[in-house]
Amino acid sequence: MNHVYRLVISCPDQVGIVAKVAQYIADQGGSIIEANHHTDSVNGWFFMRHEILASSLKQGLAAFEAGFKPIAEAFEMDWYLSDSAKPKKIALFASKESHCLADLLYRWHENDLPGEIVCVIANHDDLRSMVEWYNIPFHHVPVLPDSKPQAFAEAEALVEQYQADVIVLARYMQILPPKMCEDYAGRVINIHHSFLPSFVGARPYHQASERGVKLIGATCHYVTEALDAGPIIEQDVIRVGHAQSIDDMRRLGRDVEKTVLARGLRAHLEDRVLIHGNKTVVFDG
Amino acid sequence: MNHVYRLVISCPDQVGIVAKVAQYIADQGGSIIEANHHTDSVNGWFFMRHEILASSLKQGLAAFEAGFKPIAEAFEMDWYLSDSAKPKKIALFASKESHCLADLLYRWHENDLPGEIVCVIANHDDLRSMVEWYNIPFHHVPVLPDSKPQAFAEAEALVEQYQADVIVLARYMQILPPKMCEDYAGRVINIHHSFLPSFVGARPYHQASERGVKLIGATCHYVTEALDAGPIIEQDVIRVGHAQSIDDMRRLGRDVEKTVLARGLRAHLEDRVLIHGNKTVVFDG
Amino acid sequence: MNHVYRLVISCPDQVGIVAKVAQYIADQGGSIIEANHHTDSVNGWFFMRHEILASSLKQGLAAFEAGFKPIAEAFEMDWYLSDSAKPKKIALFASKESHCLADLLYRWHENDLPGEIVCVIANHDDLRSMVEWYNIPFHHVPVLPDSKPQAFAEAEALVEQYQADVIVLARYMQILPPKMCEDYAGRVINIHHSFLPSFVGARPYHQASERGVKLIGATCHYVTEALDAGPIIEQDVIRVGHAQSIDDMRRLGRDVEKTVLARGLRAHLEDRVLIHGNKTVVFDG
Amino acid sequence: MNHVYRLVISCPDQVGIVAKVAQYIADQGGSIIEANHHTDSVNGWFFMRHEILASSLKQGLAAFEAGFKPIAEAFEMDWYLSDSAKPKKIALFASKESHCLADLLYRWHENDLPGEIVCVIANHDDLRSMVEWYNIPFHHVPVLPDSKPQAFAEAEALVEQYQADVIVLARYMQILPPKMCEDYAGRVINIHHSFLPSFVGARPYHQASERGVKLIGATCHYVTEALDAGPIIEQDVIRVGHAQSIDDMRRLGRDVEKTVLARGLRAHLEDRVLIHGNKTVVFDG
Repeated sequence: MNHVYRLVISCPDQVGIVAKVAQYIADQGGSIIEANHHTDSVNGWFFMRHEILASSLKQGLAAFEAGFKPIAEAFEMDWYLSDSAKPKKIALFASKESHCLADLLYRWHENDLPGEIVCVIANHDDLRSMVEWYNIPFHHVPVLPDSKPQAFAEAEALVEQYQADVIVLARYMQILPPKMCEDYAGRVINIHHSFLPSFVGARPYHQASERGVKLIGATCHYVTEALDAGPIIEQDVIRVGHAQSIDDMRRLGRDVEKTVLARGLRAHLEDRVLIHGNKTVVFDG
Repeated sequence: MNHVYRLVISCPDQVGIVAKVAQYIADQGGSIIEANHHTDSVNGWFFMRHEILASSLKQGLAAFEAGFKPIAEAFEMDWYLSDSAKPKKIALFASKESHCLADLLYRWHENDLPGEIVCVIANHDDLRSMVEWYNIPFHHVPVLPDSKPQAFAEAEALVEQYQADVIVLARYMQILPPKMCEDYAGRVINIHHSFLPSFVGARPYHQASERGVKLIGATCHYVTEALDAGPIIEQDVIRVGHAQSIDDMRRLGRDVEKTVLARGLRAHLEDRVLIHGNKTVVFDG
Repeated sequence: MNHVYRLVISCPDQVGIVAKVAQYIADQGGSIIEANHHTDSVNGWFFMRHEILASSLKQGLAAFEAGFKPIAEAFEMDWYLSDSAKPKKIALFASKESHCLADLLYRWHENDLPGEIVCVIANHDDLRSMVEWYNIPFHHVPVLPDSKPQAFAEAEALVEQYQADVIVLARYMQILPPKMCEDYAGRVINIHHSFLPSFVGARPYHQASERGVKLIGATCHYVTEALDAGPIIEQDVIRVGHAQSIDDMRRLGRDVEKTVLARGLRAHLEDRVLIHGNKTVVFDG
Repeated sequence: MNHVYRLVISCPDQVGIVAKVAQYIADQGGSIIEANHHTDSVNGWFFMRHEILASSLKQGLAAFEAGFKPIAEAFEMDWYLSDSAKPKKIALFASKESHCLADLLYRWHENDLPGEIVCVIANHDDLRSMVEWYNIPFHHVPVLPDSKPQAFAEAEALVEQYQADVIVLARYMQILPPKMCEDYAGRVINIHHSFLPSFVGARPYHQASERGVKLIGATCHYVTEALDAGPIIEQDVIRVGHAQSIDDMRRLGRDVEKTVLARGLRAHLEDRVLIHGNKTVVFDG
């Protein structure tokens, strides 16, 4: 994998943005590996992502960043520059079900996940051995009915201690407190085991079976205060029929859940997801 | 295509049903072309469908039917026997949008639809020429705000006149009166342009765009009094993203809508769909 | 649909291309609706496509084109500029099977195909009535074993007469002479009823059934002298199993064939397909 | 999961088979949980699979089996009866790549694989620690150019020692000797990383990239002496495009490979796959 810098921008649309940005990158000697643009003509908003070969820049990242600031200000950009050599740190939140957790741990182990898993925080102790085989710290933080605030405070302290950039709810089965949703806005990713907005809330496979749908799905989304209603990053479905019991749906669904979460997280880690209102722009690789 | 009789059964589950039915078919010399079974162990219900080669029966259909009655009574069966040589008659209800209508007409024209389109009833006159090219009677029955009951009465009279077995709402855009839903229960098929139960009601693509989903879909279902809530026959989805406008969704959605409707209708015409409560058993071919 | 100009470029990769092109567009006042880039780092080649809002350009298309020439020369670009107000002219070649032809005619009729069908040339007369319903000229040019050269000469003369930009073999079932493949390189699109490179040549569904594959597919590709081996534009598949006869495969396959052809042709008509060697870059909309 | 017996039959087609079998099952008090039939009318062959609730049989399995023999002989059946309480024993063959192995181990660990993994035999030692975490015996049997016969003899001896019912080549990367293919016919399952019959042999992703296909796939099949040409059990594909390098294909392909292998193996373990000639009948659950 190339060492790249990623320049991610969203701003009000106007003529000349691409030219200005591209000219600046060229002036710095920047070799563009990948470029994506999107104009939201309904809202008059512009989105842009560049991957620039790190070795091609005449000066370092700091100089590039400093030089870009005036441009960003002129166009009222919401922007950042990230460095693929400093992969995002991930805190995984888990419960008892292991399929999403196991999938992410394995991908990380195989260098398939462009991020660094720094810890697992679980409200049950069941998955300790699996996590520790990967030499990743496992913290058992029980979330009990009468001490939820303390539990979330402890979890948050751990997230801070490990300097995690993103929290992944890998079938965590707990609802984060509103304050935490707000503090980590755009940095908490959840996997919901339905094709949202269908079957919000608990027991979506039961709901799906009851309704008799012919496809079940999973949704990877950013967590907001509104339950299962945050910006959607990725979704997928799988075919079911009368022959599938709820247990079959659970089994088939697990494959979709873990794949959708892995794809959504991957996009986030590579700075491919730009949030705008309650929707996302996702630039495919 | 073989000339077959289709024996379709649902009844309370118990040991010996298959043996009894299979023995009866064998006694009549019946050669089974296709057999499907499903046991709903949650509700203790049994579903079965046989395709029997017509030429293999020693006696005719009437004799077969008469002989089967005692068995059906013994097992409290809900059952019927259909004849592939008497394809179901279809009344298509349409409005202005032609994609589903055109698709079904074309499939019928190519002998790809195992049914007979006997008439098109439309609340606008726009599609007359297209329908008449296929030599199918076209009836313009406007549905106006102040004369809806008369319009539906007229449409129903036409359905009766043509002795249609099934009504297909090919993007009809009108809500049938409750009485008609009841009279034609299990015989009115609708295509809804969303992945139900998401985005019930009007303008589902607008709703989908607003919510930022990454897949849009279509649902073929039986019409009941509860809007967009009847038993689902078939569903499918297609991938969308930030780059797709609502117009793009409409365009992409059309392909899914017509395919899903054609597949659902085909299953109905071949007696592959068994309704139980608000769900379906669909035996694939 | 907006009136846009499409600037399509491929050239050896180097730093500064995007900046130069974007700067030129901005200098002309050009508002970029859509931009796509691809760097083929293996071959050191760069591909770029811009949609520019026609009304935003200070001067007309000719002035824009003239001003761009020096840039194109400096970067050794293979390039062109197209005008969405001058949709490409399409000559459809057909035989007896109508599904692809009917699908394209219908899409065109519904303003869903961003091109203009100028004529249908068929080696059988069967589809005349269907074509003429759309008020499109139908030419019956039989291809007989002992007069193939004359037949293709006649077909080619018609293509020239109608000034067609692209030839679509909509299940034409005839192999074009090498000279014609060469003369119309990158301008003849075929649909093959298999997932190439599997099952090249005749009777692919028979081959698929024989091999017992669990998916069948279709491939839309540019025609070259090498049979079924030209650059692939689009492919898709559909699930089959032991229950599907060859006739079932044909029926299911028709849906895939027409969809894949329509998608591939659409991409071509919108100048989204850039050929490089025997492969394509296809910029999704 | 219910304790069931599975009665799996294939034989020349004739009237009365279903009746005879169903009557026998009913006479024994057998409650049928699932029944599947398929008539191959081209070859005049009949396939049938029943799941019978073990607790419903008046007598045990041995008595059922003994009583069925005369029926099997009368109809010249190729048949067997399996017991879900005695899951098939699986020997996994691996090399260095872990994705298929890890996936199957994890599914087994989660009680998602209806079989028992009894050992892993690998020609490299890299995956020992992963396997041993699951408390499964790991055997390093190097396959060196000058001692292949000895290596395969050793592997085969291990398979016999563990009384494995099925060998799974989980990206084993070695070609089994013809004698072994023959001895274990219908009991060795391979995953090939292409959509066969495309890209037989080595480096299929390179071949796919070279050809510019828009979908890549994987194929789960029984191993025969003819390389990558045995009966296909399951296949699937994933979309790729110009943006995907060979490394991207490898990464995306891994997800397809492991899913296709798990699905194919699951079908085999549940006795859902009936081989006939070089094709399979796969009865979905």
